[in-house]
Amino acid sequence: MPQDLTRDLMDLIERGRDRQLRLAVTGLSRAGKTAFLTSLVDQLRHAGLEARLDLLSASRKGRLLGAQRVAQQDLGVPRFPFDQARASLEQDPPCWPEPTRGISELRLKIRYRPSRQAWLRPETVELTLDLFDYPGEWLLDLPLLEHDYLSWSQTQFDEAGPTRRAMLATWEREATQLAPDADADEARLAEISELYASGLRQAREAGFSNLQPGRFLLPGDLRDAPVLQFFPLPGLANWSQERLAALPESSIYASLARRFRYYQEHVVRPFYREHFRRFDRQIVLVDVLGALTAGPERFEDLSQALARLMQSFNYGQRSLFSRLFTPRIDRLAIAATKADHVTPEQHVRLVGLLEALLAEPLKNLKYANIPVKAMSLASIRATEAREVKHQGRITSALKGTSMDGEPLLTFPGEVPTRIPSADFWERQGFNFIAFRPQPSAPGALPHIRMDAALEWLLGDKLE
Amino acid sequence: MPQDLTRDLMDLIERGRDRQLRLAVTGLSRAGKTAFLTSLVDQLRHAGLEARLDLLSASRKGRLLGAQRVAQQDLGVPRFPFDQARASLEQDPPCWPEPTRGISELRLKIRYRPSRQAWLRPETVELTLDLFDYPGEWLLDLPLLEHDYLSWSQTQFDEAGPTRRAMLATWEREATQLAPDADADEARLAEISELYASGLRQAREAGFSNLQPGRFLLPGDLRDAPVLQFFPLPGLANWSQERLAALPESSIYASLARRFRYYQEHVVRPFYREHFRRFDRQIVLVDVLGALTAGPERFEDLSQALARLMQSFNYGQRSLFSRLFTPRIDRLAIAATKADHVTPEQHVRLVGLLEALLAEPLKNLKYANIPVKAMSLASIRATEAREVKHQGRITSALKGTSMDGEPLLTFPGEVPTRIPSADFWERQGFNFIAFRPQPSAPGALPHIRMDAALEWLLGDKLE
Repeated sequence: MPQDLTRDLMDLIERGRDRQLRLAVTGLSRAGKTAFLTSLVDQLRHAGLEARLDLLSASRKGRLLGAQRVAQQDLGVPRFPFDQARASLEQDPPCWPEPTRGISELRLKIRYRPSRQAWLRPETVELTLDLFDYPGEWLLDLPLLEHDYLSWSQTQFDEAGPTRRAMLATWEREATQLAPDADADEARLAEISELYASGLRQAREAGFSNLQPGRFLLPGDLRDAPVLQFFPLPGLANWSQERLAALPESSIYASLARRFRYYQEHVVRPFYREHFRRFDRQIVLVDVLGALTAGPERFEDLSQALARLMQSFNYGQRSLFSRLFTPRIDRLAIAATKADHVTPEQHVRLVGLLEALLAEPLKNLKYANIPVKAMSLASIRATEAREVKHQGRITSALKGTSMDGEPLLTFPGEVPTRIPSADFWERQGFNFIAFRPQPSAPGALPHIRMDAALEWLLGDKLE
Repeated sequence: MPQDLTRDLMDLIERGRDRQLRLAVTGLSRAGKTAFLTSLVDQLRHAGLEARLDLLSASRKGRLLGAQRVAQQDLGVPRFPFDQARASLEQDPPCWPEPTRGISELRLKIRYRPSRQAWLRPETVELTLDLFDYPGEWLLDLPLLEHDYLSWSQTQFDEAGPTRRAMLATWEREATQLAPDADADEARLAEISELYASGLRQAREAGFSNLQPGRFLLPGDLRDAPVLQFFPLPGLANWSQERLAALPESSIYASLARRFRYYQEHVVRPFYREHFRRFDRQIVLVDVLGALTAGPERFEDLSQALARLMQSFNYGQRSLFSRLFTPRIDRLAIAATKADHVTPEQHVRLVGLLEALLAEPLKNLKYANIPVKAMSLASIRATEAREVKHQGRITSALKGTSMDGEPLLTFPGEVPTRIPSADFWERQGFNFIAFRPQPSAPGALPHIRMDAALEWLLGDKLE
């Protein structure tokens, strides 16, 4: 399309001068995308003055002069609601920002002094930073491109545990009654699809992440459209591929398969084509602590979801992704968020657990030579670390305010450094406590290691 | 796109056999689109049995055998919620169906016996009827394609009356402070756009119809995107076109103009290209009685809105529409809805008033040789006509149930047959009373002249 071409050309020109970077933030629901992006923008806007960004080299050396929001390029993409997010943190009592829906965008112009002055090189330079925020659930749909409707139907529940299956019980009861060769009744298929979608929503509410198709959870303008009204058909094992392929267009099987294909072509692919393939760098946020609190089934589910999600960043020669799209992302960060919800000495363990959780995908990425870094951070620090005497011993604790406004001094528990065994779950588990943001203060938002994240994601571009 | 080509080809094949018809229903907010489409589907499904469709020739002659819903073709378009609408009418007490948002679709297969049997011609034939429902507000945007941002800004308020202008007062106060050549501040433009959109919403609530840009009222997935954040810039009269054109890209004027162009290309045109140009027939619903009750400013506003909306159906050689798109609609109906809200002897007057209201557009359509018919109807009849003795004279009255559940016997007033004079508004006006639907009964929904509408819109296809 000419529009895309113009946009690409403009990109190319700016990129040629190495002055533009498209950085994407994603994560599964409740991973903290909005808080991360709000803090990132806030830190850069305060850079050079109040922001504490010592781990960002350009800032430490005083070369980072600040950042300003400017008009974004894609007029059809919602603007990231930075002002609203900032305002909710400034309320009394302060509130966490409202989560975003779908994709959103914000453009910053960052001003800095290059590390080496040279003849004809200006004293200050600008980097245009395009920030994108999109639901990690959309990436869970990538593997769906590898399937046809038959194979997708047959593999959908291979990995689901008992709690998740129970959430789809009502749907399953109805769906198993459908004969693949019977005539499709649109209204009936819509009803059963709604049962399926409602099971997915219920699972998300209950803390599960490995949910597919992702758009069922955020339908937007496609609400009530047939493209979002399909589901895996049970009982296909008794049917041969040939017999299924020969069924008439009006049959239940053919109708659902048609919708599945439409979903692949009109929902999944366009996201990769129009957005994903244009990102330069990516950070994936993971709420490891939340999953640790939610118990073994959800923890295992998160692990599967992450493995699935990470396929989008695997550009290895034989990967699904590289066969489908031209990759571009040249640097990747994976961050365990909400690090302020454990005591400081646990941070190393948190990164260890994140790496254990992502062991397989990280191995693949390294093999494919994609620079990737795992870290832990708190986008907006809500607690302070304290030392307390407990039974004659000095231990560390967190001081903060509960969501109800109660002052808390607590030790949420130890983070295991490897995938927890059955023993861990029985013996102790982990008790994640939600804190309210700290009362607003002048200057940049308090954080933990946002500067390390910035250094990895754009430090080299500020040289 | 190949997808579109396939679809068009399929259309062509079905059309070649004269067995497919794409019928679109539109109307401004509250005109009764959902009730009309619900009733239309209901009448056709009951055709041949309970439905009273004597004015539809195929039905009167017993050739219409019935209709069934089948799978719609455009998987990305929401399905018209017929079942939900029907269910809300069957509640106790019955409720009017929820209004639809955006475009929706439903496909019927109508079965009938052709009027002339011939050798090799089958005894029964099927007509595929694709029904579409979309907001009339989208058509109000057509004239926007004829403007550039400058001329659009300058003509936006030529026609607005004092009440409407008052609703935009807050916006106007802020907008007049903007200097066209000042640097655009995205957040500020977003704020002022929101004031503009909120003024439009307020106007719609207050019964105004002539609102533009239409998508500001139904943003969908574009909520918070810059494309929906523009507005006419006041005070451009002091600027020459050349000076404005020379302003930098970052200026307020250039930013708003860019968004305006994006809106034209990515919002207005795609509707015409992807949907409108594929409709075969169209019915436009008008709530004349509501406007008559709301007083002179809103009545005049409706008249302007209709004139603007009707441009989309004017295929005359020199019309805006024919210069932009290839027309296809070959038959048009304009219907004053809610005819059951006046006594039967007023129906002729209602059509007379509708014709007076549309005098200019109807003249243009006739000149352009577009078959068009004005009528009055009640999609779902909520009242019964009664004769009552009042001051010794027998007069007609309406019997029904108010929205609060009170039984009513009332005479809402006389409908003027021409555009009301100042005298009418002062002397009497018209008192539209909203009735609740009648309690549900077996068989088809009660109606007034739905059969006449069907005869005009698809009678010839059932020969």
